[in-house]
Amino acid sequence: MNTSFDSIVIIFSGGMDSGTLLWDLYTIAPWREIHALTFDYGQRHKREIECAKRFIKECDNVTHKVISLDVLNDVAPSCLTRPSMEVPHGAYDGDNMRTTVVPNRNMVMLSLAISYAIGIGAGNVYYGAHAGDHTIYPDCRPEFVDAMNIVSKLCDWSPVEIIAPYLNYTKGQIAELGVSIGVPYELTHTCYEGSYPPCGKCGSCVERAEAFEYAGVPDPLLRKV
Amino acid sequence: MNTSFDSIVIIFSGGMDSGTLLWDLYTIAPWREIHALTFDYGQRHKREIECAKRFIKECDNVTHKVISLDVLNDVAPSCLTRPSMEVPHGAYDGDNMRTTVVPNRNMVMLSLAISYAIGIGAGNVYYGAHAGDHTIYPDCRPEFVDAMNIVSKLCDWSPVEIIAPYLNYTKGQIAELGVSIGVPYELTHTCYEGSYPPCGKCGSCVERAEAFEYAGVPDPLLRKV
Repeated sequence: MNTSFDSIVIIFSGGMDSGTLLWDLYTIAPWREIHALTFDYGQRHKREIECAKRFIKECDNVTHKVISLDVLNDVAPSCLTRPSMEVPHGAYDGDNMRTTVVPNRNMVMLSLAISYAIGIGAGNVYYGAHAGDHTIYPDCRPEFVDAMNIVSKLCDWSPVEIIAPYLNYTKGQIAELGVSIGVPYELTHTCYEGSYPPCGKCGSCVERAEAFEYAGVPDPLLRKV
Repeated sequence: MNTSFDSIVIIFSGGMDSGTLLWDLYTIAPWREIHALTFDYGQRHKREIECAKRFIKECDNVTHKVISLDVLNDVAPSCLTRPSMEVPHGAYDGDNMRTTVVPNRNMVMLSLAISYAIGIGAGNVYYGAHAGDHTIYPDCRPEFVDAMNIVSKLCDWSPVEIIAPYLNYTKGQIAELGVSIGVPYELTHTCYEGSYPPCGKCGSCVERAEAFEYAGVPDPLLRKV
């Protein structure tokens, strides 16, 4: 299998960050063959997956695969997947958001995305980790991505590189970029409670509101309500 | 969650190598809480999973979880999972066995085992990679295991170490060790064709036969036929 650097894989949750990344890649390099993977790991914010499907309809020629990952829900406890655990409200910071961590979620998703990339001969896997997540989620930090890239080069004969272009952006900066390139944010989902209209109270909603405030525009998701 | 170093996770396929490792851990340190994970990724040698279940019945107090990993079959092409591709017969070497590689299989399985270990507070994940696989499977090589250990330490707050004690053993040496500690090899499965009695022709059968020849004993699986 020859590696095609025009062919890329992106992990697309249906949220703001990976939505911006997908739109960014789609609009900047329309000649690239984009394969978006959305993982259904039993997250209570299932609406995110429906949003991912609607978002993709706006992107011509982007292949979309929703991958059932019940296994992650099965092996890894988190309030995002276990209805018996409460979603924390308030600040989006390390202590408050600890129960939202799905243990090792990103290594599982990245390793499957790498498998997929090897299978179709794609050279890159993109994912939308950003600086605002570094405190809460160890698997969104630069050193994690660097280490994953080392292991990714060793796991097979085909070189697959993980690229996380927003690794040092805040969510506010992502929103600012996204607004400038016309990301259809009304089609993204953020609320960890899975609510629509968004609950406005969970850490994830709080962080989204701060991002749009930074970008200086109202959140189109709220305009629709 | 506190990490318990008495609690360990092992990836147990139902084959010879991980069977020897499981028996080794089980007999050497019976006070440890052992959690064996078997992944069903649609391998054509399904009998391996049935063997895993029978093998575990011989191990008191070992917890066994069979994890459905259809997703790997879905994303990663290999003759082990796709009936349309033929299993190679003959020598167990790199060129001949190339189509048996499930792209990035071990990173996927290890990352899920790490998730599980974090969830239950176990400190180690054991897996039975060995020297005979180094040429064929990049994700069985020492440098891959070392790199996985770096990323494993970065993915979460709980330290999980991957331990592959047979990394520099040949399959013959594993068989020799296993015979000396009484591994019930008649309950393991090796044939990539999934046949019982084993086909005796696929690379995997050829390698098993060589291992028992090295150990100087007949394969109990063949005695049973």
